[in-house]
Amino acid sequence: MEITVWQAAAKGAPLERSKATLLDPGPDEVLLEVLHCGLCHSDLSMLENAWGVSTYPLVPGHEVVGRVAAVGAGVDSGLLGTTQGLGWIAGSCRHCDWCLGGNANLCPSLEASVVGRHGGFASHVMAHQDWIVPIPDGVSPADAGPLFCGGITVFAPLFDEAVSPTARVAVIGIGGLGHLALQFARAWGCEVTALTTSLAKADEARRLGAHRVMALSELGSHPGAFDLVINTSNHALDWPVLIASLAPLGRLHQLGVPLNPLQIPAFPLIAGRRSVTGSPTSSPASLRRMVEFCARHGIAPLVEHLPMAEINTAIARLHQGDVRYRFVLDGPA
Amino acid sequence: MEITVWQAAAKGAPLERSKATLLDPGPDEVLLEVLHCGLCHSDLSMLENAWGVSTYPLVPGHEVVGRVAAVGAGVDSGLLGTTQGLGWIAGSCRHCDWCLGGNANLCPSLEASVVGRHGGFASHVMAHQDWIVPIPDGVSPADAGPLFCGGITVFAPLFDEAVSPTARVAVIGIGGLGHLALQFARAWGCEVTALTTSLAKADEARRLGAHRVMALSELGSHPGAFDLVINTSNHALDWPVLIASLAPLGRLHQLGVPLNPLQIPAFPLIAGRRSVTGSPTSSPASLRRMVEFCARHGIAPLVEHLPMAEINTAIARLHQGDVRYRFVLDGPA
Repeated sequence: MEITVWQAAAKGAPLERSKATLLDPGPDEVLLEVLHCGLCHSDLSMLENAWGVSTYPLVPGHEVVGRVAAVGAGVDSGLLGTTQGLGWIAGSCRHCDWCLGGNANLCPSLEASVVGRHGGFASHVMAHQDWIVPIPDGVSPADAGPLFCGGITVFAPLFDEAVSPTARVAVIGIGGLGHLALQFARAWGCEVTALTTSLAKADEARRLGAHRVMALSELGSHPGAFDLVINTSNHALDWPVLIASLAPLGRLHQLGVPLNPLQIPAFPLIAGRRSVTGSPTSSPASLRRMVEFCARHGIAPLVEHLPMAEINTAIARLHQGDVRYRFVLDGPA
Repeated sequence: MEITVWQAAAKGAPLERSKATLLDPGPDEVLLEVLHCGLCHSDLSMLENAWGVSTYPLVPGHEVVGRVAAVGAGVDSGLLGTTQGLGWIAGSCRHCDWCLGGNANLCPSLEASVVGRHGGFASHVMAHQDWIVPIPDGVSPADAGPLFCGGITVFAPLFDEAVSPTARVAVIGIGGLGHLALQFARAWGCEVTALTTSLAKADEARRLGAHRVMALSELGSHPGAFDLVINTSNHALDWPVLIASLAPLGRLHQLGVPLNPLQIPAFPLIAGRRSVTGSPTSSPASLRRMVEFCARHGIAPLVEHLPMAEINTAIARLHQGDVRYRFVLDGPA
């Protein structure tokens, strides 16, 4: 079938509306008619080929909410017409140790939604049935898109690592990821601290769930304060101060990718049994638990809606950090 | 009572036999008559005041095997005459969250055996009753000393972190710690690889439990090979290669303290949900599980015995790495 896509012809080029051809869904595949698609920093990285995996023309967009328009063999036809989410991963092999072990997000041959295939800034997008996420009552489909990449990225450090609700959690960076991390950590039952370079966001951080807001520059005055620091920033930080802010058994969970390696002093790691972890998006099972958790706790991305035809405006403004906290582009494409 | 100690008068000074006075055991204290004491790298660091916590005259020695010679109030008198081990920690507060939570090794006011008190290169040493370790049948008291610091240091990354016996474990450095790590990991049921700069130790590494021995320089050819790398080396390593050698969900456990921070690239940490951890000695409960495990599996330090009067020879040779794999100094002092 003929579909509409918003594609970049080359590295750094603006997106242009274009036509593309999509085959009918194959076995286990689901065709989504795109209703909404969030704009994630990773889309900017893909457009710039920052990770060396981009191919052009490139159609970004991996925070999709769509309506099931067609299903392939082996897919329950009852899904037709339902509203589903789709994030960074559109398919995995289902046969490797990772897929079979419940960690399909670590599948070495996973198919990213925007790598070697077209993403959600389009009229339609295809996905494997395992990777679509039913949107429960209580979650607004119009605003849900950012949950499927930004949301799961910050939900995973809590859920996949089985964080205790007694934990003292700090979130660094109050942006697309951080504003969701604050909500998740608060609903998780934790003591929540927002660490930010911009105290202008303090009131909003509190509304999002932070018990307290602290300037990142003050962190050095709070040694041993946190059981978990979720770092959404991709800037070089004062790593020794960050590690020192962890209590014994505390953990720094890194989500941002700074240009240079993290500088982790061994002694405090050893003496306090501290750790440094990281994670990508999570598994299909985690995605489903996440949206149920959002429905139960009223967790939602704060978004600014634009029609999909204004995608280039959204990209330009995201480059400047001019959004609180996520753009969602609305179809039709 | 008057006791004999081997003490350094100042930083870097040789040990000299001397007399000291010890009060009778206070409540919950146990006086050990030292039978044997291992020599650990940490003793060298203490003698050099490498960590800034040394006070002089300094009596090192924290891998003690001794006979209970006297007990204070609140200690079962049935302990008198029994043989017990004593490691890095001789006391903890018993009232903080860490002590009460089973992590007394993380107590902020713990008393190290050789910090602000005299250690095991002596005729007698005092310890809190919680920190002495009964030596079970099947563990040779003469050789057991190094278990109580070197041994527990490498047992902790397996036991405290609940490593699965299905894990593929690599041990970097076949020395005082590493030669015990190989034995523990093998008995734990893991696939064990010894990583060494000295293939001259290959045969011995295999006897100690390694299924295979690999030059550290070859690590780059084995991406994703290990679920756990226990790094006993305190040298700067090729950290990106080390992280890349971890499978998804894999963990680098750091035990050596290099001069400069570890350089940990964020991307592979995030993409593969890998982690970097560290740990000091462990808790009283872990110490007791460790010696039972040693008895059941025939795990023992490989030691060279010298009379305590030759402690300065042992120190000089340890400085040169001239021991396989641990010195034990035998009393009387």
